[in-house]
Amino acid sequence: MTFSSANLAELLDAELTGEPRTVACLSSPERSGPDAAVVLFEKPDTLPEAAVLVVRRGAGLSEATPHIEVPDPKQALARLSRQFDTRHPVAEGQHPSAVIHSEAKLAEDVHIGPGAVIGAGAQIGAGSRVGARVVIGPNVIIGPDCRLHPGVTLYEGTVLGARVTLHSGAVIGADGFGYVASDKGVLKVHHLGGVVLADDVEIGANTCVDRGTLNDTRIGPRSKIDNLCQIGHNVVIGSDCFMAGSSAVGGSTVLGDRVVVGGSVGIIDHLSIGDGVQLGARALVRQDIPAGQRWLGHPAKEMRAYVRDQSLLTKLEAFLHEQAALKDGG
Amino acid sequence: MTFSSANLAELLDAELTGEPRTVACLSSPERSGPDAAVVLFEKPDTLPEAAVLVVRRGAGLSEATPHIEVPDPKQALARLSRQFDTRHPVAEGQHPSAVIHSEAKLAEDVHIGPGAVIGAGAQIGAGSRVGARVVIGPNVIIGPDCRLHPGVTLYEGTVLGARVTLHSGAVIGADGFGYVASDKGVLKVHHLGGVVLADDVEIGANTCVDRGTLNDTRIGPRSKIDNLCQIGHNVVIGSDCFMAGSSAVGGSTVLGDRVVVGGSVGIIDHLSIGDGVQLGARALVRQDIPAGQRWLGHPAKEMRAYVRDQSLLTKLEAFLHEQAALKDGG
Amino acid sequence: MTFSSANLAELLDAELTGEPRTVACLSSPERSGPDAAVVLFEKPDTLPEAAVLVVRRGAGLSEATPHIEVPDPKQALARLSRQFDTRHPVAEGQHPSAVIHSEAKLAEDVHIGPGAVIGAGAQIGAGSRVGARVVIGPNVIIGPDCRLHPGVTLYEGTVLGARVTLHSGAVIGADGFGYVASDKGVLKVHHLGGVVLADDVEIGANTCVDRGTLNDTRIGPRSKIDNLCQIGHNVVIGSDCFMAGSSAVGGSTVLGDRVVVGGSVGIIDHLSIGDGVQLGARALVRQDIPAGQRWLGHPAKEMRAYVRDQSLLTKLEAFLHEQAALKDGG
Repeated sequence: MTFSSANLAELLDAELTGEPRTVACLSSPERSGPDAAVVLFEKPDTLPEAAVLVVRRGAGLSEATPHIEVPDPKQALARLSRQFDTRHPVAEGQHPSAVIHSEAKLAEDVHIGPGAVIGAGAQIGAGSRVGARVVIGPNVIIGPDCRLHPGVTLYEGTVLGARVTLHSGAVIGADGFGYVASDKGVLKVHHLGGVVLADDVEIGANTCVDRGTLNDTRIGPRSKIDNLCQIGHNVVIGSDCFMAGSSAVGGSTVLGDRVVVGGSVGIIDHLSIGDGVQLGARALVRQDIPAGQRWLGHPAKEMRAYVRDQSLLTKLEAFLHEQAALKDGG
Repeated sequence: MTFSSANLAELLDAELTGEPRTVACLSSPERSGPDAAVVLFEKPDTLPEAAVLVVRRGAGLSEATPHIEVPDPKQALARLSRQFDTRHPVAEGQHPSAVIHSEAKLAEDVHIGPGAVIGAGAQIGAGSRVGARVVIGPNVIIGPDCRLHPGVTLYEGTVLGARVTLHSGAVIGADGFGYVASDKGVLKVHHLGGVVLADDVEIGANTCVDRGTLNDTRIGPRSKIDNLCQIGHNVVIGSDCFMAGSSAVGGSTVLGDRVVVGGSVGIIDHLSIGDGVQLGARALVRQDIPAGQRWLGHPAKEMRAYVRDQSLLTKLEAFLHEQAALKDGG
Repeated sequence: MTFSSANLAELLDAELTGEPRTVACLSSPERSGPDAAVVLFEKPDTLPEAAVLVVRRGAGLSEATPHIEVPDPKQALARLSRQFDTRHPVAEGQHPSAVIHSEAKLAEDVHIGPGAVIGAGAQIGAGSRVGARVVIGPNVIIGPDCRLHPGVTLYEGTVLGARVTLHSGAVIGADGFGYVASDKGVLKVHHLGGVVLADDVEIGANTCVDRGTLNDTRIGPRSKIDNLCQIGHNVVIGSDCFMAGSSAVGGSTVLGDRVVVGGSVGIIDHLSIGDGVQLGARALVRQDIPAGQRWLGHPAKEMRAYVRDQSLLTKLEAFLHEQAALKDGG
């Protein structure tokens, strides 16, 4: 698949400077070649050889260099990356080795990969693709145009909106971690709630989202969760949140909208994290956080408090040094 | 499936106040309705509409409100949740697509889901249910009444007691992380030990328990491990322990009985953690801990030492402030 | 399978003291018996009963005790463990339930377990073994003598060298976590790069290695990654590295050769970690680290700085105590 650089400019709502050329791939500057489109976030000392460069408006490239000026090179990269993505879809057709329960309801144009298992009463919306070895439990509801990569597991009663993407090994709807001590030994709390993932949610590989105790665990529209995250029972995550890899959220904690969670963050249970909060990598959050604040550290503190603490140690070192000098001098 | 509220009272060894009604579901207070049973941990300002409320003894509800008084509402919730759990079993019957080795031994009433794979010499006890796509390696021994959710993997020689529950994606018995440097390059230590999970153990989704080097990695009766935990080779965990999600235990470390591990805790290798120890979320444990203590922090300290450290920083800030004022004033 | 202790001595390039005996197993000292070989790292107070003991040169055992002296008992353990590993291979033969695309190319002596799925254009090298339920995406290239344990998933275009071992649940090549905000909502960055795992790499259970954005994510020869690790997009890890369980590396970070990463370490994105760096358990790395240094803590600091910080708190406590005494005394 090749494009004309003129078409790529059009796709980016921008203009091509120089002659149109044939573009066969989207490359990093260091792997570029004469048939590549290359997006430059900053202007380098030496321009890479390329069929066309995509640069920030006002970058000041000469007319001799074929290029496209855009307001935001990162957006341009995202737009172009979609064009050059020639990977196979997650599944194509319905493979005969899939085990589809007779009481499952599949809309038109649903694709099911080899060895997938679809339970009684499950519903799958039009255009959705279910990869190899995916297990869809009974009464799961999947909206249209979802993509479930190989090896995903959905426990009974999980609900996905439209255009949800789940990566391999994700487990949605497993029992929450709930037990109660009694004089007859520990009692397991059976989890009667489910999991609801709203439209355009994306869940990373091997991430777990537990089902709710009585209500549902919920993740709001357009929120993106990276790999190996743990989302506890009854958690509610708002819309447009981002959570980086290996993070964990304890049971019943509520995140507002547009919360950004760095990598390997831990948030304990039963907290409320306000809209637009940002949490630094590895933060340990043990208290509610008001909207809009940035917290980090172990335990996490508001950024200015964190910076003050760090500088305290430096000041302390200087002070103790001074004291020791006084004593010696005295 | 419906119940009479009188039967629910009986189940809870308690008495119903008010007329018996039909109960169709167990609900949270905020999702309640006229056919719901609702357990209240505390008496709210406004009572939810319900077929029956379950409240702590002495809550003082009027006789006009149908209710059941119990000594411990959390226990009541656990007991009731079991009644209202109408989910399908993990597997029902033996699916023809399962691949069962001719030398595997299945007791009566074993259920095997679609695409499960059972190796040579494996034994499965009566009443156990093996979900879709589970892989049971050669010579694995599974006790009676176990439940293996879809996509679990048991490496060769793993041993499960009775009533063990494994959630999707759990991997039991993978090689421990053991290598030895040599002048001919790094040598892999082959792991000849296994994993033994005792009766009533529950293991969360995508959790890994590695096999032992020469002896077995062991988890004692009734211990519960949450999702995405890492249990290293040769670890021994006692009975009645709880480990919350995303925690990790380094190789050869020994946990006593009734140890409670918070979320995302890390315990390094070759330590001894005494009976009844409690570890706060995200604790980094780098030394042995005597029985009964509570530790937290990074690195973890005994709780009083941790609290003292935190207050030191506050005192330091005040002190440095005072010093600066003296200097300015002097 | 049994060995003569004389043969074991030969295997270790060492000499047997005492009469040759039949050895049926390799045991830990506490599980030993008359037919066991036992490696002792240190000389215990009481010698275990064994067919033969393997001890450090100069341990001074009497001639009456059959034993083998070696320069390095840990190396001896690794060598012997290989001999006594009688587990079944990951797969044997090609199971009829595997779904192998007609355009996949399998070299001679490739073994495929039940329910494995192999995509269009995939290539598998001679002697490689693919476990049950493994999913190999389109155009994946696998070198010779690899071992893929049950339930591994390789996304399209992943490349494995020779003798690569992947443990169950590992997911290689999932999309990196890349999104760009725009006025039309968030845009997903399609990941056109792949993952390249070099010769002799071993990846633990449920570990994720994400594909690159434009270039490949790469792990160098002989590097070993433990369970439940997260390797972000575009990361480059050098040769002979070791990374213990539950660690996470943010996108585009580069690790040199011979880097040793303790358990549950977090390294943020876009960093450069030099050759031979050692990171303590749970370190949070937020800056570049020069070659050869040892860092730990939250945030991580060079070891001497870390130790100084820890001692500062102790000194501070003493100082504040003294100040309080002066005030009281004054």
